[in-house]
Amino acid sequence: MSTRTRRPALADSVRLSGGGVEILDRRVYPFERRWVHCATSEDVAVAIEQMVTQSSGPLFATTAGMTLAAREARNEPPGRAAERLRASGRRLVATRPTNNHIRDAVQAILAATVDGPLPEASGDELVEAVTAAGAEHDAAYWARSAALGRHAAALLDDGAKVLTHCWADAYLIATVEAAQEAGKRLEFVCTETRPYLQGARLTAATLVEMGYRPTVITDGMVAAAMADGLADVALTAADRVTMDGHVVNKVGTLGVALAARAFDLPFYALVQAPDPLAPVIGDVVIEHRDGDEVLHVLGTRSAAEGTTGYYPAFDATPPGLVTRIVTERGAFRPEHVSQHFVEESS
Amino acid sequence: MSTRTRRPALADSVRLSGGGVEILDRRVYPFERRWVHCATSEDVAVAIEQMVTQSSGPLFATTAGMTLAAREARNEPPGRAAERLRASGRRLVATRPTNNHIRDAVQAILAATVDGPLPEASGDELVEAVTAAGAEHDAAYWARSAALGRHAAALLDDGAKVLTHCWADAYLIATVEAAQEAGKRLEFVCTETRPYLQGARLTAATLVEMGYRPTVITDGMVAAAMADGLADVALTAADRVTMDGHVVNKVGTLGVALAARAFDLPFYALVQAPDPLAPVIGDVVIEHRDGDEVLHVLGTRSAAEGTTGYYPAFDATPPGLVTRIVTERGAFRPEHVSQHFVEESS
Repeated sequence: MSTRTRRPALADSVRLSGGGVEILDRRVYPFERRWVHCATSEDVAVAIEQMVTQSSGPLFATTAGMTLAAREARNEPPGRAAERLRASGRRLVATRPTNNHIRDAVQAILAATVDGPLPEASGDELVEAVTAAGAEHDAAYWARSAALGRHAAALLDDGAKVLTHCWADAYLIATVEAAQEAGKRLEFVCTETRPYLQGARLTAATLVEMGYRPTVITDGMVAAAMADGLADVALTAADRVTMDGHVVNKVGTLGVALAARAFDLPFYALVQAPDPLAPVIGDVVIEHRDGDEVLHVLGTRSAAEGTTGYYPAFDATPPGLVTRIVTERGAFRPEHVSQHFVEESS
Repeated sequence: MSTRTRRPALADSVRLSGGGVEILDRRVYPFERRWVHCATSEDVAVAIEQMVTQSSGPLFATTAGMTLAAREARNEPPGRAAERLRASGRRLVATRPTNNHIRDAVQAILAATVDGPLPEASGDELVEAVTAAGAEHDAAYWARSAALGRHAAALLDDGAKVLTHCWADAYLIATVEAAQEAGKRLEFVCTETRPYLQGARLTAATLVEMGYRPTVITDGMVAAAMADGLADVALTAADRVTMDGHVVNKVGTLGVALAARAFDLPFYALVQAPDPLAPVIGDVVIEHRDGDEVLHVLGTRSAAEGTTGYYPAFDATPPGLVTRIVTERGAFRPEHVSQHFVEESS
């Protein structure tokens, strides 16, 4: 494998232009490279709801969508333009409740503009300020991911066999890049991650782009793969981490953590920061999606008629099953993850 | 729901006739009701290898296939006919290594005929004897399953929410029938069971036939479903149980057992008897199937190019994670399952 690769396609999957926002459709990637055109901020919200993009994608879609919102408010007077921008932000935040990327992006853009130094901005000034704040938020996200990736790569031994679940997006890309820069060889086992198959499609395709030959397993094979020695470590993103160390991530993560514990393997969860607004797990809303998605695969009916699908999009792994939570500031024991806000750690 | 239902379609999925054997194709059921015609015992072996039928299906396919083998040897002299029958039996046993239904069926038929009281049988006498021995073996299997089902149903509380994995076939049908006869209401949560989706298709369709409205989850949702209170008990078949209480069953069962333990739910495994030829887990061959099956769903590519699939068809759950092993003679603690052969228990 190469020691340094160009950035994979999913690292550039939301593109802002004069005519709107283009979002790479992760529901069909890599089998199709289809871009969904969003002409309005509402289009962006619908695309997020419909899973055109997910994982880190909604963050970039949100910053781009806020630029569209500012453009839509271009002819509004000051004050009303600000209110319209805030309303578009609320609409974007309402799309998906569990991950806080969208909320944080909207807050950052508003704080840098109409809720901060530019309460009276309107017209081109507002568009430019929102666009600049969005670009800054995007860049900061990549920079924090890179820092997180270096801390995560430091936990991986040369030659480590890494079992992933779902698609850790920027965190995984950054971890792999940091491991490659450190000259560490890695192997990967990816769960396919039903119902959307993000593991089999997004994680696996991106790792192939980065020079690996990942092994794919079904979601039920995690414990068997560990029993058979295919994994040395389990590594996933976290959509949210509470201040008391609960890891909220794609449903199935809890099963991965239970299997890792049973086979005495470390389980590392990656998140830029725990959520200070979520002291305990009861503060996190677990999104439930349409159960019909469980009854289909890639658009084809896969379950018998007369059944009902159940689709919690996320599950919560208690701190006792987590070895380290890796943030941009270091790798913390879950019970100490709140120290992310008070100190550097490793 | 009704208290007594007609037998579901999968309870009659192998049919012997004058022209051969018809096997209901479980790879596409219930979306298609396609029957695969097997003209020869070799056709039956290939059908088993290719998963046309599975779970209890290969037992019935084997007894029917042995009748075809006897017909194929009809014109052979005594002795040579017996050898040909044994060779067909070896071919059938070689199809799949983990479940011992095929081995036991072949042994029973040979023991009732050429390896027993009829060493010199040939022609029509051999065909009739093999057909009768096969029918007796089939009937005994159903009778033992019914006994097992009564013991299993006795463990389930009225109103119990039962989480299943894969397709327990005759054992599940018998358990449900016994629960219905006892007036117990049950609810079901079925894992879809990738890659063949036996849970979403076979288990779910059969439970619908029997009067239920099962909930389907993906294989990664077991722990989340338990955390959310959807299950009171986990119940699966076992393809093999060792004399020291290891449960070998469809890959994913180990993850179900780990989750059940984490949420303090009982895990019951159903098998007519432990295998006296498998004292310990090292005596069981775990079948590995073509990894490409993991990379596809219902014939459509589901994983990125450049990946490799890994497909252990079964996993082994250690006795410490099993609450009871239910045999035709009762419900045994796993460490006592060998007492199946010495006493009745409950």
